[in-house]
This record gives sequence, C-alpha cells and structure tokens, in this order.
Amino acid sequence: MHFLTLATADLDAARQFYRDGLGWTPLFDQPGEILFFQIAPGLVLGLFAADKFDQDLLRGHSTSGVSGVTLSHNVADRAAVTTTIEQLLAAGGSIVKSAQEGEFGGIFHGHVADPNGVIWEIAHNPGWHIDGDGTVRLE
Amino acid sequence: MHFLTLATADLDAARQFYRDGLGWTPLFDQPGEILFFQIAPGLVLGLFAADKFDQDLLRGHSTSGVSGVTLSHNVADRAAVTTTIEQLLAAGGSIVKSAQEGEFGGIFHGHVADPNGVIWEIAHNPGWHIDGDGTVRLE
Repeated sequence: MHFLTLATADLDAARQFYRDGLGWTPLFDQPGEILFFQIAPGLVLGLFAADKFDQDLLRGHSTSGVSGVTLSHNVADRAAVTTTIEQLLAAGGSIVKSAQEGEFGGIFHGHVADPNGVIWEIAHNPGWHIDGDGTVRLE
Repeated sequence: MHFLTLATADLDAARQFYRDGLGWTPLFDQPGEILFFQIAPGLVLGLFAADKFDQDLLRGHSTSGVSGVTLSHNVADRAAVTTTIEQLLAAGGSIVKSAQEGEFGGIFHGHVADPNGVIWEIAHNPGWHIDGDGTVRLE
C-alpha cells in the first residue's frame, strides 16, 4: 500500500491535530481541499475534503465520515503511550479508551479520536519487531 | 503509522480477496478472529472481525463496516492498473470506478471494493517517487 485517504470534514482541525499532536510536517497542503503527511517509509496519508472524496469516487451520496478503521502508532515504552495521548488531547483529540493493558500480545495502549472522528491507537507493543529491510515480525 | 485495522464482517472472503487478488500471504491468520498482512515496509494491515473490533474499543455499538477510507496501491504502468483490477474482480471484488484518467497529477486509476466494501484505488502515478530511505516525493 502506498497511500491512505480519509474523508475529512474539517481540514484545519486535522492539520492542527497532526502537526501539534504528533509533530508531523505536511508534505503537501492545499487548504480546503487536501492535506498530505508522510506516515511511514513510502506511505502517505491524504486527508481529503469529504465532498471531494465522494466526487473522486464518482458517487452521488456523501460520506458521513470515517468509520470501521483504527490507525495505530507504536511508541517506545509505556510512558510514551500516556504522554502521546496527552499531546493528542491537547491538540484537539478526544479520548476513546484510556491507556491500559490490551487483550493481546502484552501490549499497552489507548485510543484517541482526531477532531474528525478518526480513531488512533497509541501502543507500546513489546512483540513488534521491524527488520532492517522493513519486514515485520510478531513475537 | 505501524498498523491499520479494519472492521471486517467476512474474514474468509477478505482472505481470498487479498491472497488471490493481490498475491499476498498472511503474516498471521486466526480464522474467525483476525487476519494480518504486511502491506508496506514496517506496516501491517489487520482485518479484525467486526464484533471484536468494537469490543477492543470498549464500545457498546456495532460498526456497520468501513467507510470514508480509500487504500491505494500503486503499480508500474497503465496496463498494470487494468490487469490488477481484473484480478481483484476475479477474487471477489466489485467495481466502484473503472480505470480512467484521474483529476490530479497525471494519474491513471480505478477503484474496486473488496468483499467487505473496503475501497482500493489501483493507480499508476508518474509523479510518485520513493527515495532509498523511504522518503516520498511528489512531482
């Protein structure tokens, strides 16, 4: 996968959330239309004004927002889960699930919704390893 | 971003679609529960049974499916857009937008919904470049 596009009602709120909450710099920014952030090697997140998202798909109906999706950001330790969630809340996010033990694989995580309702998991996952070539191993 | 989780009603249909349509091998496969594919360097796609997706977020309501999201897969040339879309349709996908010129940046693309309604864009984007360190450049 090379690109992930999300239908976004409020691009200005999204810009502030990702810039101030996660420290990201836009790769491309066309106010009122689209906002790009690089979010992994070779991968770009596109926040696309919701009406233009629908136009691009040639659909007559409008998208009510993003649902059924969680984006996960891994951090180095449990303390960073808590501090990252605090930064995201200060940048306009709202809490979905406070930082706690997860059900699987020894993870410690919490969930924050961005100002447009997109859910981010902030996780410390001790079983997650990435080899030098980008191969993911789960232990 | 390290992980992308999608609420998935029919994991068996999803497994077949990604295996046969895109040639992917699962990184982890727990039938009826969750299915992982590595989809980029350091990035895993998790297809999570929809009821468990909601449980993990500690939510009382159920997710109706994925909406407001497009996942994009870039291919090497225009012909590969058409042949990849054909493979995805043969593997259980349905057409959203047939292969055609896009509105932006000289791209040629089409869109297919997976058996659970997740929209994939298959694109040839001549302005998309990835440097050796994974940095994306748009020209």
